[in-house]
Amino acid sequence: MSDERHTPLADRTPFPDDIDERLRAQLTFLVEVDQLKTVLRQSPLAAADRRENDAEHSWHLAMMVVVLAEHSDRPFDVGHTVQLVLLHDLVEIYAGDTPLYDSAAGVDQRAREVAAADELFTLLPADQAQRMRALWDEFEERRTPEARFAKAMDRLQPLLLNWMARGGTWRTPGVTADDVRARKAVIGDASASLWEAGRRLIDEGEARGWSRSAEPEA
Amino acid sequence: MSDERHTPLADRTPFPDDIDERLRAQLTFLVEVDQLKTVLRQSPLAAADRRENDAEHSWHLAMMVVVLAEHSDRPFDVGHTVQLVLLHDLVEIYAGDTPLYDSAAGVDQRAREVAAADELFTLLPADQAQRMRALWDEFEERRTPEARFAKAMDRLQPLLLNWMARGGTWRTPGVTADDVRARKAVIGDASASLWEAGRRLIDEGEARGWSRSAEPEA
Ligand SMILES: [Ca+2]
Repeated sequence: MSDERHTPLADRTPFPDDIDERLRAQLTFLVEVDQLKTVLRQSPLAAADRRENDAEHSWHLAMMVVVLAEHSDRPFDVGHTVQLVLLHDLVEIYAGDTPLYDSAAGVDQRAREVAAADELFTLLPADQAQRMRALWDEFEERRTPEARFAKAMDRLQPLLLNWMARGGTWRTPGVTADDVRARKAVIGDASASLWEAGRRLIDEGEARGWSRSAEPEA
Repeated sequence: MSDERHTPLADRTPFPDDIDERLRAQLTFLVEVDQLKTVLRQSPLAAADRRENDAEHSWHLAMMVVVLAEHSDRPFDVGHTVQLVLLHDLVEIYAGDTPLYDSAAGVDQRAREVAAADELFTLLPADQAQRMRALWDEFEERRTPEARFAKAMDRLQPLLLNWMARGGTWRTPGVTADDVRARKAVIGDASASLWEAGRRLIDEGEARGWSRSAEPEA
């Protein structure tokens, strides 16, 4: 990790000085996060032949929270959960996307993402930086019903895209259907019915040869 | 307008029949809305040399609601407003994007979008279709503080992108700085301070030659 800070995107076309300083900080942050639209994920879109980016993914999760809320096993706050998913991947603007099935990149993922959060959120006025960081910590710690449901959406959404692609990232070399089940099981921490459906899609995908069954022991 | 319905995207890879019917309807809708990621807008991204799509735009508006909430002139519900912006452009999946400065396309825009809403939302279970439609109507009617703030974000976001692009769609042939001011003035229905800043950017853009000043009367 380097100590160098990124030059904010807004510095390319600075806002006039006479705009209130607090609002200027907020606008600078809002321009900076435009970069989420350029962070590519592994998942293929259902609607087009290209990979998804983090902004599209985050929007899709938010829609899923609204539409699938009734499946939560616990009462939870939909508006708060939507905020969690909207910002859960912002750190990837500086830290990059870490593919779910890439264990090597996973090793220093947490450290890279914390450094990114420190840098990105402090573009905001201090009180908002603190609040944004608290929301991201809440998502990462996965202790509240809201954070668990948000995480479940984060795992269910690419599962839907992989289903539509008849494999998608399930076909990653070295990945088996059991790996997929293990990575997706957290859906069950939020919703028994959604995990039942998710498992059904994984099982059916395996049966159709869209993912690799584990080799029998030699 | 034709009476033909679109074949849902999910029909390409139907979900197994033994998934609960209500959940299957919800998943079918959630796959269908993947198409929002393919509806291109006129606005150029700040972070890359390409146009923005509706899913990215909707995500960006939602972030703006969260970050700029304090600028609202009236108390309002942030979580509810985020839901309005998440779904405000869904009808464009079938109806297409209507550029702000294209008055010809604006003529039958409302009829095309209502037909699209009827078709798209009814992929959901009836109670949810009704609720989604009510949210979209609320956004369109612009009467609640939530709908006004949502609309303000919808007008402020491309203004930020045009500022970053040093012109962007302000350079559309036939469009003057006064046209931009007229189209953006609804920001002031939600927030005096945001409209003051928005007007400042439009004025400064005009002064720098990024938009066309009106011709003096002959
Ligand atoms: Ca991620």
